[in-house]
Amino acid sequence: MSPTGDGILFKTEEYAGRLAKLKSEMERREMDTLLISEPSNICYLTGYEAYSFYVFQIMIVHRDVSEPIWIGRSMDAVSVRRMTYLSDDSIRPYTDDYVQSSEKDPVDFVVAELKEICPTLKAIGVETGSFYYTARIHNRLLESLPANRFLDAELLINWMRIRKSAAEVAILREAGQISNAIIADAVEAVQAGIRECDLTSVIYRRMIAGTPEYGGVYPSSAPYVLTGSRTGEPHAPWSDRTIDHDTPVNIETSGCRRRYHAPISRTVYLGSPPESYLRLADAVTEGIEAALEAVRPGVTCGEVAQIWGKTIARHGFHKDSRIGYSIGIGFPPTWGERTASLRESDRTMLEPGMAFHMMPGLWLDDIGIVLTQSFVVNEFGREDLTTFPRQLVIK
Amino acid sequence: MSPTGDGILFKTEEYAGRLAKLKSEMERREMDTLLISEPSNICYLTGYEAYSFYVFQIMIVHRDVSEPIWIGRSMDAVSVRRMTYLSDDSIRPYTDDYVQSSEKDPVDFVVAELKEICPTLKAIGVETGSFYYTARIHNRLLESLPANRFLDAELLINWMRIRKSAAEVAILREAGQISNAIIADAVEAVQAGIRECDLTSVIYRRMIAGTPEYGGVYPSSAPYVLTGSRTGEPHAPWSDRTIDHDTPVNIETSGCRRRYHAPISRTVYLGSPPESYLRLADAVTEGIEAALEAVRPGVTCGEVAQIWGKTIARHGFHKDSRIGYSIGIGFPPTWGERTASLRESDRTMLEPGMAFHMMPGLWLDDIGIVLTQSFVVNEFGREDLTTFPRQLVIK
Repeated sequence: MSPTGDGILFKTEEYAGRLAKLKSEMERREMDTLLISEPSNICYLTGYEAYSFYVFQIMIVHRDVSEPIWIGRSMDAVSVRRMTYLSDDSIRPYTDDYVQSSEKDPVDFVVAELKEICPTLKAIGVETGSFYYTARIHNRLLESLPANRFLDAELLINWMRIRKSAAEVAILREAGQISNAIIADAVEAVQAGIRECDLTSVIYRRMIAGTPEYGGVYPSSAPYVLTGSRTGEPHAPWSDRTIDHDTPVNIETSGCRRRYHAPISRTVYLGSPPESYLRLADAVTEGIEAALEAVRPGVTCGEVAQIWGKTIARHGFHKDSRIGYSIGIGFPPTWGERTASLRESDRTMLEPGMAFHMMPGLWLDDIGIVLTQSFVVNEFGREDLTTFPRQLVIK
Repeated sequence: MSPTGDGILFKTEEYAGRLAKLKSEMERREMDTLLISEPSNICYLTGYEAYSFYVFQIMIVHRDVSEPIWIGRSMDAVSVRRMTYLSDDSIRPYTDDYVQSSEKDPVDFVVAELKEICPTLKAIGVETGSFYYTARIHNRLLESLPANRFLDAELLINWMRIRKSAAEVAILREAGQISNAIIADAVEAVQAGIRECDLTSVIYRRMIAGTPEYGGVYPSSAPYVLTGSRTGEPHAPWSDRTIDHDTPVNIETSGCRRRYHAPISRTVYLGSPPESYLRLADAVTEGIEAALEAVRPGVTCGEVAQIWGKTIARHGFHKDSRIGYSIGIGFPPTWGERTASLRESDRTMLEPGMAFHMMPGLWLDDIGIVLTQSFVVNEFGREDLTTFPRQLVIK
């Protein structure tokens, strides 16, 4: 990639390979046309990463048309031109009067383009579960195209993304270095008496500045900074409250590099933790180490989760929720890929190139501890994407 | 509100008034049940503001059931309990095995709850255009409930939100003070030779730390920091490139306080702008002042936009895109309310309590200038939410 974190991220051949693989999967499913709504999937196919998905945007892939076609707002076409390999004819912007208008609907624009560009429209895949493919968009398409031509292509590209190329792993490593730096800054800054928002501002500063080698961009989700009894609320926002003495501070965040994420979470305990809390920390530490040790090609996600479950059970603990998920490209509102989860019922078999954020946590009454690890599966086992020590930090 | 930016944001009576108004509008539309997917609308009705919308979450309002019912992930129920007035019986979490699972669908959980809780299910409103109401969710509901019972409730609550209460305006003012501080920090930090990501990190730091009185939270959209020819790409991310001499730097961002936004954009020109650029700045400045001067109750959004258009036309410029949108509560991916736009075709009549971000910008070949103003309409005209001088900054 460019040393300045700029320009087209991957070589043209890498994008060509992804597109060829997609078209081959479309052929297998007897799908001639695919409408891609998920920004992560558009980015995966073309490298496009502007924040233009908050208004209507879609990408068309047709098996008999060489390039993907981008449809979006006119003011964003110049970014598509710069960030991707697409030729001008594959960039089809709609005018601004389609934006959040009660009079004009950009889906009508898409239908007109589909009829012009696509040699056939026999079987049209749509990403039904994408945040950016709303019920309204689907209903409007059904007004112009027969319902029996639609196929559910939900997660089709997401599952292709689960195995990362060597070039993608290189970017994930850069994101991991930013994550290390964020946690180091947060551990240094956290102390009783400062406001939660001031601690969080330190996290954001490093997240975006990155390292001297690798600048950061916004991750797909806000960080979580939870103190005291709020550690029992995994997705609550921070506030203006000052941080207490003798309390855990849970931090969950991610460095992000060219939309690739390598999340990290750590708990910093301010003061001397009670014995019961230290036992909780021991259980989590032993559990994550055992689960990580099990990671290697051929093992399933479910087996990894079972090892976690059995290990903490020996300490008398139990956890219902999944302990991790596939990571890679992410756009708001989430950095997860929405495919494999590290949970007992998931039979996805680990393969080299798969990347996960293993994120176990345990709660005791209303206070908790988090300790996580992002990694890539390799032929020997795994490569950790972050190197910050895996332990409860006591300060 | 609580001085620590914590606790339930508004008085119970304010939430009760909003709910009563909603139920009355539902009655007018002959809708007995409403399924609310948009996090901003859930927040408006209850004050709930956790980042739990990246997995399935929905709120049910039934005209004959006193409280709204929250349905979401089990680990987030504790946040609903703390942040809202909802009683335990109105908090209906699903277990974690429903999350991003190929085996269990949380929509089935919703259907079971609907049948248990709602005395009637004759006419069910759904927010078809919400990012959080995907085609998949709608299709799954249609498998269990007859299609002819569904009504489109898209933007129903969004339009109720357009007129802010006095308590909401007070929070918007706090967000505006954070916006002032962000731009002041950015103007001080920007200089040739620093990386774009380092400038952006200064913006983020202040955005989150806020002011000594008012801490910030994450805004619903990343800031835009665009330099040189990138000022022609309104939604491109910043990069690791160092900022040049003799170039404009466009900054668009927003302070956010309890999910309320008061966005601000300014251009800082590093060096001596050429004459042509100064003429562009004059046109934008004169245009925004004329348009702001026109803001008062009884004038339409379209009339305000026309005044902008006529003013810049006298300078020989023309702009196709809208010059603003309604603001208030926002959740990712956008801080706009998706209702009224400041564009010539919009006939929404301004009323006291409406809030907008007026965001005109002009481009000359590939470099541009931005200069914006967030304001609330009041009985006399308007109140500006930010006070940073409205002019091109030359540094």
